[in-house]
Amino acid sequence: MQERFFRTFIPLNPVTLVNSYEIPKFVDSNTLFVAVSYSGNTEETLHAVKRAKERGAVIRGITSGGKLAEILNSTVIIPKGYQPRSAVGYLTIPLLRAFDLFDDSEVDNAKEHLAKIDRNIGTWQEFADEIFSSNKIPVIFGTPKLEGVAYRWKTQFNENAKVLAYSASFPELNHNDTMALENTYRKEEFYFFVLTHKQIEREIADRIRITSKLCKIKMANVEGDGNTIFSNIFTLIHKGDYISYFLAKKRDVDPRNVSIIEDLKRELKERS
Amino acid sequence: MQERFFRTFIPLNPVTLVNSYEIPKFVDSNTLFVAVSYSGNTEETLHAVKRAKERGAVIRGITSGGKLAEILNSTVIIPKGYQPRSAVGYLTIPLLRAFDLFDDSEVDNAKEHLAKIDRNIGTWQEFADEIFSSNKIPVIFGTPKLEGVAYRWKTQFNENAKVLAYSASFPELNHNDTMALENTYRKEEFYFFVLTHKQIEREIADRIRITSKLCKIKMANVEGDGNTIFSNIFTLIHKGDYISYFLAKKRDVDPRNVSIIEDLKRELKERS
Repeated sequence: MQERFFRTFIPLNPVTLVNSYEIPKFVDSNTLFVAVSYSGNTEETLHAVKRAKERGAVIRGITSGGKLAEILNSTVIIPKGYQPRSAVGYLTIPLLRAFDLFDDSEVDNAKEHLAKIDRNIGTWQEFADEIFSSNKIPVIFGTPKLEGVAYRWKTQFNENAKVLAYSASFPELNHNDTMALENTYRKEEFYFFVLTHKQIEREIADRIRITSKLCKIKMANVEGDGNTIFSNIFTLIHKGDYISYFLAKKRDVDPRNVSIIEDLKRELKERS
Repeated sequence: MQERFFRTFIPLNPVTLVNSYEIPKFVDSNTLFVAVSYSGNTEETLHAVKRAKERGAVIRGITSGGKLAEILNSTVIIPKGYQPRSAVGYLTIPLLRAFDLFDDSEVDNAKEHLAKIDRNIGTWQEFADEIFSSNKIPVIFGTPKLEGVAYRWKTQFNENAKVLAYSASFPELNHNDTMALENTYRKEEFYFFVLTHKQIEREIADRIRITSKLCKIKMANVEGDGNTIFSNIFTLIHKGDYISYFLAKKRDVDPRNVSIIEDLKRELKERS
């Protein structure tokens, strides 16, 4: 997740995401390897770190503790006791900070916009009500720079509301999803969002408009607040969090409950 | 799409996918920029190439013609007249070949396995029948090295059968989808595939088994044929192609028809 946000902030150097056990062949002593795991005990992350160590990579961690904090000398320790998905700020900001990808005025500006969202949550409750009233499956369309946020919304619908959800992004979805959107069965069972911002590229705005018209689909346009990509990302995350939270409440499920993931981790540990 | 396959073949150097208009900041005269567009007229690809040229990148193309062939001196020209998705071999092999990522014996071996699939297509027709009988939405779970193939299946369901479809991959989906899989509404309306191969990592096989048990979901396991990742990728592509083709036939839609995408391209061109 964090890599997607990080890459959004204009990569200065090539960044490769590793979200499984194995690491790319090119990792060597010239590589900066950043391990991000809230618990510090994510199995695939620890495995990848072990491999990166063998190759002599420079390794830094971002974690609240666990084995990751034990095995690494240089680690940013963030507060314990959150759900990993609630710690998105703690997990992301140190990474962006280390590469000097925002300045403090942007954080202050984003905070003001975030507080405004908190004072006016009715809109997000209405979205949740509408999704719930027909048990719709959310599909979130990202746009350049907001692909990571679209994926965040998907994962929040999964973890908070316990409903399946999917994300895709413009312009890539114009090469495939578009052919299904007009004519698929079950189209009315999906709820389409598109995430945008005030500085959206003209080509992308045109694609959204034309796709909607040709495929005869309604997309709920949710816009980020503020004039920086930093503020747009975090305000859109916040809006999506509210929608998935209210959907959980409507469904009468506990948004904090992740017992299945915990069961899975325990079974994986026992068998090894 | 091709980048996902390419990356599967063990990256020797960092590879970054660009599937929109803008290129990463790090692109300069030390960058090898490979532009892949079947028609040679893909708007975002041409835009990205223009930007890469301005930065002095070394550019190579893979295309059947179009503007890409006109503006680049060094291009692999592949046969015209296919649907881009049918030209997956033509689009992919030159890229893998350029980096010496397979040898000819692997191609011969894969060809034998592909021919065997052609002689026994009943299984794939049965999958299509089962999906069609309840209008199920396909969800394809990839595994390490087969993430790109899972995405290919999704796009083929979209373009051939004109149905919505989604892909996700182990182990990443164990952090989010897993919480929805047990308890979501509409679970019975999805058809879950998992793509594997004979050399699948033990950790991943365990995750598939435990996820299926804890979430009480049935996943149809489709295995690649052969002992190389090359053969596994191309045989699994072939199997997915058959399923989406048969689903199109069942739905009485033309798998070749991509009129909406063509309409979209025309409207995008007219407005500019």
